[in-house]
Amino acid sequence: MTDFKIDLRDLFFILKEQLGYSRLCRLDAFKDLNERTLDLLVNEAVRFAKGVLDPLNAVSDAEALLYEKGEVRCPVAFKKAFRQCGDDGWIAAVGDPAYGGQGFPLMMRIVINEMMYGACQSFNSAPSLTFGAARLIHSFGTRALKERFVPKMFDGTWSGTMCLTEPGAGSDLGALETAATPEGDHFYIKGSKIFISWGEHDLTDNIIHLVLARIDGAPSGTRGISLFVVPKVRVEPDGMLGEPNDVVCTGIEHKCGLHASPTAALTFGGRDGCIGYLCGEENKGLAHMFQMMNGARINTAVSGMTLAGTAYRNALAYTRARVQGRDIAGRTAEDVAIIRHPDVRRMLLWMKAAVDGMRSMIYTVAFWEDLAKGLNPGPEKTRCQDLLDFMTPILKAYCSDTGFRVCEVAMQCLGGYGYCRDYPIERYLRDAKIMSLYEGTNGIQSMDLMGRKLSLRNGACLKAYQDEIDTFCAARREHPVLKEGVRQLHETAGMLWVCAEEMKRRMKADPLQWASYTYPALMAFGEVTMAWRLLDMAVIAADRVGAEDGSDDFHRGKLCQAIWFVDTTLPHTQARIRTCLRTGREIVDMPDNAF
Amino acid sequence: MTDFKIDLRDLFFILKEQLGYSRLCRLDAFKDLNERTLDLLVNEAVRFAKGVLDPLNAVSDAEALLYEKGEVRCPVAFKKAFRQCGDDGWIAAVGDPAYGGQGFPLMMRIVINEMMYGACQSFNSAPSLTFGAARLIHSFGTRALKERFVPKMFDGTWSGTMCLTEPGAGSDLGALETAATPEGDHFYIKGSKIFISWGEHDLTDNIIHLVLARIDGAPSGTRGISLFVVPKVRVEPDGMLGEPNDVVCTGIEHKCGLHASPTAALTFGGRDGCIGYLCGEENKGLAHMFQMMNGARINTAVSGMTLAGTAYRNALAYTRARVQGRDIAGRTAEDVAIIRHPDVRRMLLWMKAAVDGMRSMIYTVAFWEDLAKGLNPGPEKTRCQDLLDFMTPILKAYCSDTGFRVCEVAMQCLGGYGYCRDYPIERYLRDAKIMSLYEGTNGIQSMDLMGRKLSLRNGACLKAYQDEIDTFCAARREHPVLKEGVRQLHETAGMLWVCAEEMKRRMKADPLQWASYTYPALMAFGEVTMAWRLLDMAVIAADRVGAEDGSDDFHRGKLCQAIWFVDTTLPHTQARIRTCLRTGREIVDMPDNAF
Repeated sequence: MTDFKIDLRDLFFILKEQLGYSRLCRLDAFKDLNERTLDLLVNEAVRFAKGVLDPLNAVSDAEALLYEKGEVRCPVAFKKAFRQCGDDGWIAAVGDPAYGGQGFPLMMRIVINEMMYGACQSFNSAPSLTFGAARLIHSFGTRALKERFVPKMFDGTWSGTMCLTEPGAGSDLGALETAATPEGDHFYIKGSKIFISWGEHDLTDNIIHLVLARIDGAPSGTRGISLFVVPKVRVEPDGMLGEPNDVVCTGIEHKCGLHASPTAALTFGGRDGCIGYLCGEENKGLAHMFQMMNGARINTAVSGMTLAGTAYRNALAYTRARVQGRDIAGRTAEDVAIIRHPDVRRMLLWMKAAVDGMRSMIYTVAFWEDLAKGLNPGPEKTRCQDLLDFMTPILKAYCSDTGFRVCEVAMQCLGGYGYCRDYPIERYLRDAKIMSLYEGTNGIQSMDLMGRKLSLRNGACLKAYQDEIDTFCAARREHPVLKEGVRQLHETAGMLWVCAEEMKRRMKADPLQWASYTYPALMAFGEVTMAWRLLDMAVIAADRVGAEDGSDDFHRGKLCQAIWFVDTTLPHTQARIRTCLRTGREIVDMPDNAF
Repeated sequence: MTDFKIDLRDLFFILKEQLGYSRLCRLDAFKDLNERTLDLLVNEAVRFAKGVLDPLNAVSDAEALLYEKGEVRCPVAFKKAFRQCGDDGWIAAVGDPAYGGQGFPLMMRIVINEMMYGACQSFNSAPSLTFGAARLIHSFGTRALKERFVPKMFDGTWSGTMCLTEPGAGSDLGALETAATPEGDHFYIKGSKIFISWGEHDLTDNIIHLVLARIDGAPSGTRGISLFVVPKVRVEPDGMLGEPNDVVCTGIEHKCGLHASPTAALTFGGRDGCIGYLCGEENKGLAHMFQMMNGARINTAVSGMTLAGTAYRNALAYTRARVQGRDIAGRTAEDVAIIRHPDVRRMLLWMKAAVDGMRSMIYTVAFWEDLAKGLNPGPEKTRCQDLLDFMTPILKAYCSDTGFRVCEVAMQCLGGYGYCRDYPIERYLRDAKIMSLYEGTNGIQSMDLMGRKLSLRNGACLKAYQDEIDTFCAARREHPVLKEGVRQLHETAGMLWVCAEEMKRRMKADPLQWASYTYPALMAFGEVTMAWRLLDMAVIAADRVGAEDGSDDFHRGKLCQAIWFVDTTLPHTQARIRTCLRTGREIVDMPDNAF
């Protein structure tokens, strides 16, 4: 019995029935693949997650990391698992075959991460960051840089990181001070970074840091930032490891959760010189880094969703097994399993809908990302890119906050036991909390959405999103079972479009007032997206209800969750939208001393 | 600089301006007290909390407890603090002077707990439980029992616990199996209890357990439960300690938070016999225990509120100090403290309103409790008891869930730093989580409110509550500044009364459907109560705005928080009420296998 729990029918329902993910195999890049190979990968991923990663929790839960004199010692089992992760191709699954990748669609990275983050959140950021860093070098580095680093990262010989934050530059990256001084074909890097996930460890002999720094004389602010590849140990032209590169870990954080994932403070070039290689264009570093950061934002959503998913399924298993109290309607004389108690079922149904809706939302966006990348130029490709850009901050913020909330409710289902370490839910809760904070706080996401994204490409992103919702509502407004839910979605979406226009206006007219309502506005977009995805699944399920192949309950569940979630959530969404439209300026006008 | 932060002006505003707490000194029991002595106690409590309890967190944060062979070793500093707590009269502050108590109003226990739980949640459950257990003996025990135990508990020589839960009897106490066999003037107790806070420790030489057990031959279910005083070490008639009483600790829990508070599993009478003394009437044990449990439920609300309070003030201090990013409206050219960012202010204002509203709600109920106890018989005394009974489950559930939410939002204000142990907020968050789970889960509270309490004493409790709200709305509906908020409260309350009637009807007509909406209905009562308390404070503050005594900002803050909270919360409350009134039966009808 593993802690990590998932019902693959839920996942395949989305991948196959809702999205038809094998359509990706029609893209040029994936023409050697077919539905069977994709399915196989999904099944292998869950097997690996349960067999190799889930057992790591036994050692990851306590304060598993040893920091001493700049070195971080990880549990031995982690080292072995990382090795296996590389050997078995999990890091490279969606990488370019020319550099040792397996060439699967990007979407499969999300599937893999759902399994692996769900099985061991602490561990999986290591392979996930390694892929992200390698992909960044692959996208923007020179051929030499790619050849030197990418294959060894894809196969897990070396790991990777992203180094953005500095003590004085967190949410405001424009303030960063790490310096890069040119010296022949490379640069000397000098500065400090903090909050670097897997910034120091002993899983691999080398760590490849992707570092944002400012080249001497570059403009201040975000326009003077460049991206550098900075190995922990220098790499000789023949690929062999050379001297240490003066990247020193000065400490690791003691955190609420993620106890086995080292969060390092690093000093670059504090002693005898740290060499870095420019990756991509000078002063375009932040734009380049956004590839990795957007990927990380989506992965943050995946983490929130998958921790919620396994928390829900653990709570469900508990409520089925735990016998306590009488049936409130007296349907039986004996004590019953607590899943029979309506208030417990309320929590279960909400969690089920929340997880399934988030999963659908995330996979839908992942599907668009592959289309945006793989389609030939044209309106469909553009539309998918618009949708991806628009949805990224929604996914990040909505799924992180909601994922945490699901873990909270899951704990509630277990009563006092949920608070104890005998069950994994308290760990899920602690691990999930970081998702709202890192990769740009959720407040920052809301300003990205309601500021940049609403107007991006002349409003095309918002328009593409609106078209998706409006088209769905128009197509399903007469649906025999779901028309009332569709009507509510249509009504709420209409209010949201008005709100979006008003927010656009206010951003210019009164940016302070605007910024004090971006977060609830983002959450309204999240809820509308959830309602849409759940209803879309329910439309498919409605045709299957009554089938005698044993799938009846499964499909009834999809219907129930959609109808109930929509009818109990959208009234709140409408309240939220009204709140965003209010003109009160209390938040802004309140004197600082009045807090 | 201590972690625990509170602005005493907020507290005194409620105690003096809103409630006029010195009115309690008119009651017979408190006629030797006056406002100055009450104020003094408040000021001393905060001094003690900051000076003695707050420093305990430094040792309480790690896994501070050592369990070995049935014994629990606590940090030495805890032992010293408990001693001082007893010596300085904090345990006995509201106890009966005839047994060594200080004779303050019960309400002052809440003030003391706000300070002490806020300063060190792990520690303060020890003195708090000790008082609760001593009070229980005082209320129901024989004179001999009282004389033998109460003074030594009041002065902290011995500590106390409440022993209810068993492995098979958690939410359903009727299932408990611990047995009591009569033997002369005492009983032999045999059974196991779990989740006993401070059930074993080395702070004191003896621990007095208040144990629920079933006397041989007693009826099954809740009607056959009696209450016993069971010392860990037997107490000779002369008050000296005798032989061990065969109460064996078989382990302690490893928990999400509260790391320095031992949660013990205890076996009574497993070896050579465990003696217990009947406290109160045979088979009335559960009713007796409810005195302590209701006290514990209110204390749970206090814990949620005070952890939220110190989390808010820690976040506030951080947002004032942390400089990051430009002013969004360009009001200054320099980087600004993040309190200048509207989305940060949104979080601060919500936390401020949530904490102040909860505090007012709790103290108002505490005030009623003293009146219910101290007034001469008559309608006013009855009204206060009705209000106390009605509000207890609302306080417990609303303040625990909301307190946790405030800790979450406080963490968000600190970004990644909030997730690290360098700041106390992640500890507050972990400690606060238990409040929704223990002393009856919040689901149980909602069934108590929407079941028993709605109809209790022929609906008098609900009626008393409605009168409070309706009277306030009628009196303030023309208020020059607040009339719009009052109108919204009135409108929402009207919907809530309809909802309450409908819930009463459904409880009988369709208990399953009823029970699937009790929780959102309780939250609606919580929000209405918050709106009322915040508006009530704002009415007072409105008269002070513009004063030139330096209090202007303070009073403006009370106005802002009320107007903003009411206008952004009550739309959600109305949505929630509509949700409770829906007739959908998805939660109930969904097949178990569909989850």
